[in-house]
Amino acid sequence: MNKYNDKYVFMFDEGSADMREILGGKGANLAEMKKLSINVPEGFTLSSKCCVRYFEYPAFMHNVHYLVEEYIEKLQQKTGKKFNDEKNPLFVSVRSGAAVSMPGMMDTILNLGLNKKSVEILAKITSNPEFAYESYCRFLKMFGNIVYGMSYEQFNLAKRDIPDNLEGLKKLPDIYINLIKQKDRSFNDENTVDQLKKAVSAVIKSWNNSRAKSYRRINNIPDNLGTAVTVQEMVFGNFNDQSGTGILFSRSPANGENEIFGEVLFNAQGEDIVDGSRTPLKIAELKSKMPKIYDELKTIATKLESHFKHVQDIEFTIENSKLFILQTRNAKLTPDAALNVAVDMYDSGDISKEDVLMMQNPNNITALFFPRFKENQEFTLIAKGLPAAPGAARGKVYFDAESAKSNAEKGEDVILVRTETSPEDIDGIFSSRGILTAKGGMTSHAAVVARGFGRCCVAGSSDITINEKEKFFVTKSNHIIHEGEWISLDGMKGEVYLGKVETEPAKISDNLRKVIKFADEVRNIGVMVNADTPAAARQAIEFGADGIGLCRTEHMFFDEDRIMPMREMIIAKTPEERKLALDKLIPMQRNDFKQMYDIMKGMHLTIRLLDPPLHEFLPKTEAEIAELAKDMNIDEKDLKNTVVSLKEVNPMLGYRGCRLAVKYKEIAEMQTRAIIEAALRSFEDTKIMPDVEIMIPLISELEELKFVKNIVKTTADEIIKNHNSNLKYKIGTMIEIPRAALLSDEIAEESEFFSFGTNDLTQMTFGFSRDDAGKFLFDYYDKGLLKDDPFQTIDQRGVGKLMETAVTLGRKTRPNLQCGICGEHGGDPRSIEFCNKIGLNYVSCSPFRVYVAKISAAVSAIKLGKSKLQKR
Amino acid sequence: MNKYNDKYVFMFDEGSADMREILGGKGANLAEMKKLSINVPEGFTLSSKCCVRYFEYPAFMHNVHYLVEEYIEKLQQKTGKKFNDEKNPLFVSVRSGAAVSMPGMMDTILNLGLNKKSVEILAKITSNPEFAYESYCRFLKMFGNIVYGMSYEQFNLAKRDIPDNLEGLKKLPDIYINLIKQKDRSFNDENTVDQLKKAVSAVIKSWNNSRAKSYRRINNIPDNLGTAVTVQEMVFGNFNDQSGTGILFSRSPANGENEIFGEVLFNAQGEDIVDGSRTPLKIAELKSKMPKIYDELKTIATKLESHFKHVQDIEFTIENSKLFILQTRNAKLTPDAALNVAVDMYDSGDISKEDVLMMQNPNNITALFFPRFKENQEFTLIAKGLPAAPGAARGKVYFDAESAKSNAEKGEDVILVRTETSPEDIDGIFSSRGILTAKGGMTSHAAVVARGFGRCCVAGSSDITINEKEKFFVTKSNHIIHEGEWISLDGMKGEVYLGKVETEPAKISDNLRKVIKFADEVRNIGVMVNADTPAAARQAIEFGADGIGLCRTEHMFFDEDRIMPMREMIIAKTPEERKLALDKLIPMQRNDFKQMYDIMKGMHLTIRLLDPPLHEFLPKTEAEIAELAKDMNIDEKDLKNTVVSLKEVNPMLGYRGCRLAVKYKEIAEMQTRAIIEAALRSFEDTKIMPDVEIMIPLISELEELKFVKNIVKTTADEIIKNHNSNLKYKIGTMIEIPRAALLSDEIAEESEFFSFGTNDLTQMTFGFSRDDAGKFLFDYYDKGLLKDDPFQTIDQRGVGKLMETAVTLGRKTRPNLQCGICGEHGGDPRSIEFCNKIGLNYVSCSPFRVYVAKISAAVSAIKLGKSKLQKR
Repeated sequence: MNKYNDKYVFMFDEGSADMREILGGKGANLAEMKKLSINVPEGFTLSSKCCVRYFEYPAFMHNVHYLVEEYIEKLQQKTGKKFNDEKNPLFVSVRSGAAVSMPGMMDTILNLGLNKKSVEILAKITSNPEFAYESYCRFLKMFGNIVYGMSYEQFNLAKRDIPDNLEGLKKLPDIYINLIKQKDRSFNDENTVDQLKKAVSAVIKSWNNSRAKSYRRINNIPDNLGTAVTVQEMVFGNFNDQSGTGILFSRSPANGENEIFGEVLFNAQGEDIVDGSRTPLKIAELKSKMPKIYDELKTIATKLESHFKHVQDIEFTIENSKLFILQTRNAKLTPDAALNVAVDMYDSGDISKEDVLMMQNPNNITALFFPRFKENQEFTLIAKGLPAAPGAARGKVYFDAESAKSNAEKGEDVILVRTETSPEDIDGIFSSRGILTAKGGMTSHAAVVARGFGRCCVAGSSDITINEKEKFFVTKSNHIIHEGEWISLDGMKGEVYLGKVETEPAKISDNLRKVIKFADEVRNIGVMVNADTPAAARQAIEFGADGIGLCRTEHMFFDEDRIMPMREMIIAKTPEERKLALDKLIPMQRNDFKQMYDIMKGMHLTIRLLDPPLHEFLPKTEAEIAELAKDMNIDEKDLKNTVVSLKEVNPMLGYRGCRLAVKYKEIAEMQTRAIIEAALRSFEDTKIMPDVEIMIPLISELEELKFVKNIVKTTADEIIKNHNSNLKYKIGTMIEIPRAALLSDEIAEESEFFSFGTNDLTQMTFGFSRDDAGKFLFDYYDKGLLKDDPFQTIDQRGVGKLMETAVTLGRKTRPNLQCGICGEHGGDPRSIEFCNKIGLNYVSCSPFRVYVAKISAAVSAIKLGKSKLQKR
Repeated sequence: MNKYNDKYVFMFDEGSADMREILGGKGANLAEMKKLSINVPEGFTLSSKCCVRYFEYPAFMHNVHYLVEEYIEKLQQKTGKKFNDEKNPLFVSVRSGAAVSMPGMMDTILNLGLNKKSVEILAKITSNPEFAYESYCRFLKMFGNIVYGMSYEQFNLAKRDIPDNLEGLKKLPDIYINLIKQKDRSFNDENTVDQLKKAVSAVIKSWNNSRAKSYRRINNIPDNLGTAVTVQEMVFGNFNDQSGTGILFSRSPANGENEIFGEVLFNAQGEDIVDGSRTPLKIAELKSKMPKIYDELKTIATKLESHFKHVQDIEFTIENSKLFILQTRNAKLTPDAALNVAVDMYDSGDISKEDVLMMQNPNNITALFFPRFKENQEFTLIAKGLPAAPGAARGKVYFDAESAKSNAEKGEDVILVRTETSPEDIDGIFSSRGILTAKGGMTSHAAVVARGFGRCCVAGSSDITINEKEKFFVTKSNHIIHEGEWISLDGMKGEVYLGKVETEPAKISDNLRKVIKFADEVRNIGVMVNADTPAAARQAIEFGADGIGLCRTEHMFFDEDRIMPMREMIIAKTPEERKLALDKLIPMQRNDFKQMYDIMKGMHLTIRLLDPPLHEFLPKTEAEIAELAKDMNIDEKDLKNTVVSLKEVNPMLGYRGCRLAVKYKEIAEMQTRAIIEAALRSFEDTKIMPDVEIMIPLISELEELKFVKNIVKTTADEIIKNHNSNLKYKIGTMIEIPRAALLSDEIAEESEFFSFGTNDLTQMTFGFSRDDAGKFLFDYYDKGLLKDDPFQTIDQRGVGKLMETAVTLGRKTRPNLQCGICGEHGGDPRSIEFCNKIGLNYVSCSPFRVYVAKISAAVSAIKLGKSKLQKR
């Protein structure tokens, strides 16, 4: 930007696309089109520096006004038009436009230049007095609204008694002018230049209205960018019969077919398309009516597409047989189209691999490889919930995990419906096609586990009330669904349908595979998965993950044949009893780990020590307790006491993670033994040295880490020594407690790697329990207090600040510290970009988000100038 | 320190007390005594800069060795003694000593200079070969341990077969030397200077042993202080009959009486007093045996006391009728003594008001104004728990709040015994003399409320098991206590005694009042109280608080006549129903606030909007629900549904604080109305303008604050306008969520003050639920993973870092932002010092800690150079 330091305004032919930062997206593209000799109505853009300077030094607005005078003169010379000129009257639009899109805060004033005199001129030229007067009225209302903060209601109220015909219309300007004069007695209908200055001032000032400030804060947009202001000659598509307006896509935005696609309306203005008052015609009509213009437009579209390396979304106007382009921007494409277009353009040699990736919306990629409902089907929507895990599923409804499992085993398609799920439902979730819950958010147990298994899930549907005892649920729409009846779920939309809606399987097209390959070549950070079982490890390999970033060992304990020894361990009264129970668990864990090491073949595998509070493994209800006591042949009262004594007010902040290992070092010893012995055995069998990482969860203090690390190290070293092996392993920690992030320079003294547990970190940083926050978070989104679910995408300003601190401090102590993320956010595109920005080495996500993560990682690498292709 | 930049070693006569930072506490005081011409054995101190330089640049140790050679030469000249000299052999001690006391990491080597040759000389001079050889052996063991890391066990093992007589003793040095030579073949018994160098090196290096590093981390001591090393001539109190050793206090450390106090042992060394092998004599014996020495000592004591302005704890040795002072330091005094001595010295004009305050230990002050047990009574300790609220109490045991209350009303002394207390027990707690709970920590509900009411409390006593149904408890010591039986509680010690132990009321002495007055003159920050009721407000005034820093409005709702409308409000199904219930509450709240404003007479009063989750106001058990449904004449199932729907997994992180106001703006409106109307009415009656501060709890995001602030402001402004009043009020927020602290520059845009809610902030920063953490925190203290209860004293490294960030960022936005603390930590001396350091304007604590807080505030002001007396 330095080269423009002393220049504040740019005629269109002085700018270019790379000046987006000071001219805004719209202004920069208009200038670029000028450079490409495309016929754009003339204009000029006041750079965002005007805005920045004004807020630093309000008197600078005088300079702005001076510049407006200077440049409107230039514009008049360039166009040969003049404000209020009898023959060639000039009309302009005034639009804001920042470098970053801020929809909803964009203030625009159209038709400036209209006044009592020029309205008559316009009426004469267009032979359309209604149009001229309506345009004039629209200008006055916009001007009053934006410059003086007047409401549209105020204007509409004033015209209540005016007849709705041309005569009435002609009376309105005076009424409106009087209204405006009540706000500003100096308003002068004839002084168009003064109006322009006021309009420009208002648009500049709108940068700091509270709406815009809130938007920026929430979207993490710097306050000091400022907005540019573009003043552009108006052209009229309703000038005459040889005029028109329309939009054009350089290719089909639906499927990417290489054929222009668009709509046109003759003798009309853009608003007429937008407000739906007239039905636009297909672009082919233009070909037959104005073949030359059509060809011109097609040529322009091709030119712009190859110039911007993206399908273009173009606004055009034809004024008296002359084609003008009013705007061009990258088109929003469907996932299919984005893929097909990009690969097509790449194959034609038009764009690079990076360009291909930049055309993808990683979030939408997910849709491409989950089952979806076939098109053109009728269905009855019966309830809505949160789109917790993507995919489409249909099945018979069951209300408990056991029935779901047993009926699935009989070959039925099953949907598990629960008020909320718990770890014991895990088999049921795995057996089902989809899960529907009445409570819980995007990161509730059901949602997390469903995403992990690639099952479709609609969570937290407050539209349904479940009677689990009598096995039915009622919807707000008064449908009653009993056990065994069919419903269908759309996990992308969060919708529940009646009966069987037909699905079709995922289509993983060759184009998608190609794009993923590009992503692998470009991305600078690893993409791992969270996988807790050998089966999940296999899936990880299939999806092409770089390794396993998180293996949650507790998930291995919920299996029917394992939970018993786990429970024996918990109710053990002495270290000896505990060891006895742990001895039963060790072969199971060792076997799991051995299989996983075999599968991973030396790839990254981070195993986390036991994390959840012990009460999660015990039954909750009196009946369950009684049953278990009988099964275990122990005193019921005793068992109940244990259950009660382990109960916690706030389990999230309770007795779990490394806190368990501090008290029961036998657990950490057993798990370490299982990990190390599995690694040694895997090496024996495969001759491939496994990559062993042991992760200690919930650390808040260095001394605590040292203590647990010592248990792990002592155990591991002894086994390795006894085996005469040279197996290496690393011990690291989760950063999931704010204090650990704050003190990560200390923590890094002992921790050989960091893995951000952003689920818990978000809970504690915000003070939101993810199990409970659903009750109020919707209200927060509704009221605009939060824009995104912080459990879905990292809260960069708060949680992200802590993460950045942790990375910086951690690497101060240990410069090559490996940092990753294993929270749910590891599969979220915006979060991945943030992780890349702050220097994480990898993200770890659920297997079904690997593709999304790879593309996001690549896109973020390109944006950050870290593409591996560029580095070569 | 700049003036000593090029000097690394100081003979004692080159130093002074104000060089504590580089000479350590001990070295600096030795030097100071030299300056006062007191007979101190000669020596020199290597400044802590040697240590600092060494760790920056290890080769610096060569310079240190060179300096040791130079200064040992100087020492030999000064003393006329020489290592291994036949007539005047020199023996020295080598001691570490940092500016900050670090007990347990202080390495010391005594008797350096002894070797095979000099031991014989010493034996001859003292005519005590056993002593000489024992000293020699002690030296070798210490040397081996500290220089080479050898264990004492190793030495003791080696002497197993050696006879325990002089002959055996004489054989030991060779055995020990051989052991040492296995570690270092270059060890040379004769080369005393080399040994000295090695000893100095080892002591310097010990600064960074892991034990010392952990200690510093936990105690927040900077790593770059370094330790000083003092090398001092040994003197022998067992030289002959005209020798001895002892300790002396310049006044009585027990009650402060102005009379020297101490003990002496003739022909003995310091160790003989410490190890208890001989019983020391009263200092008066010295007077009769060596009257001149006694007088000399007395003069020195007086001199030192008036010099250091504190009672001195002096170590002395008499060697052959010559008095040497080995150490002097400020004596540890009982609270009574500290008060009496200080006021006495102030009255004599010896010390200033600041000196008086610096002599107090604020933590002990509490003991002075709570009831205590009379002295000389027998009692049976039956259980221990946490010293949760100070004081002594005895009473009959009751197991529920209602019985406690009704029997207290009959005039009984009552102790409430509960597994844990809940907000509904509040009347019971108030009616009792003391509270005993089986569960919960220092900041459990019982503890917090008891401290608030000034009731004695022993919390979380795992020694007792309560049967609330059959109304008795059993102790681990097998005592069974039934309802109505007497027990006694010591809230300072956390002990439970059998039966009635006689108490005596608090003694608030004139001296205490005087000291508090001094504190008020000196302190630079406000001391407010947390007070929720008019009664508590009156107490605040009595204790001389500067205002009320926190009024928790929810405590007003638990009263029997108020909880019903509160419950109606909660179960209301429409805003209208809710308003109806709130309309019943408004006169009650308004009346409370009005009374509080009347009492405060324009002093500070910060009222916090409703904070706890709504389920706290509803019954929990089925029976209670049924009863309430009947009372309220509503459907039991309906009520149960409400209770269930409000239940939370992690209420701490749940639906409470400002989150309630976001959803139910009627609640915030009602409370604002009550506050503003009360203020207006109070002004009408008293003509004193109240100081109105409204505090919004649990803010995590600016948009959220703006939203709730807007509700409060709209309501307040309308009322004020309608009253034609010019009442001013401020709206601020609690900083109790990590995210709010991290983003406090934004929060300060809308918040007119900050109040740190360090209870919650600690919970979230650490990931510790204070209701649950008791289960594992004791284990953490035991294992040294945490030194202090973070709910008791602010965790300065973690939570404190967030606080400091918040103050800095907040004042960047709003330079005069008023910041205070209203968590439990507001009454803790170390936390108060920290708060003062980071620039808080006030602390707010429970009324009974006002004196502690005032003295702490004053002491911290002095330490930080912010004393108001100094500023004048």
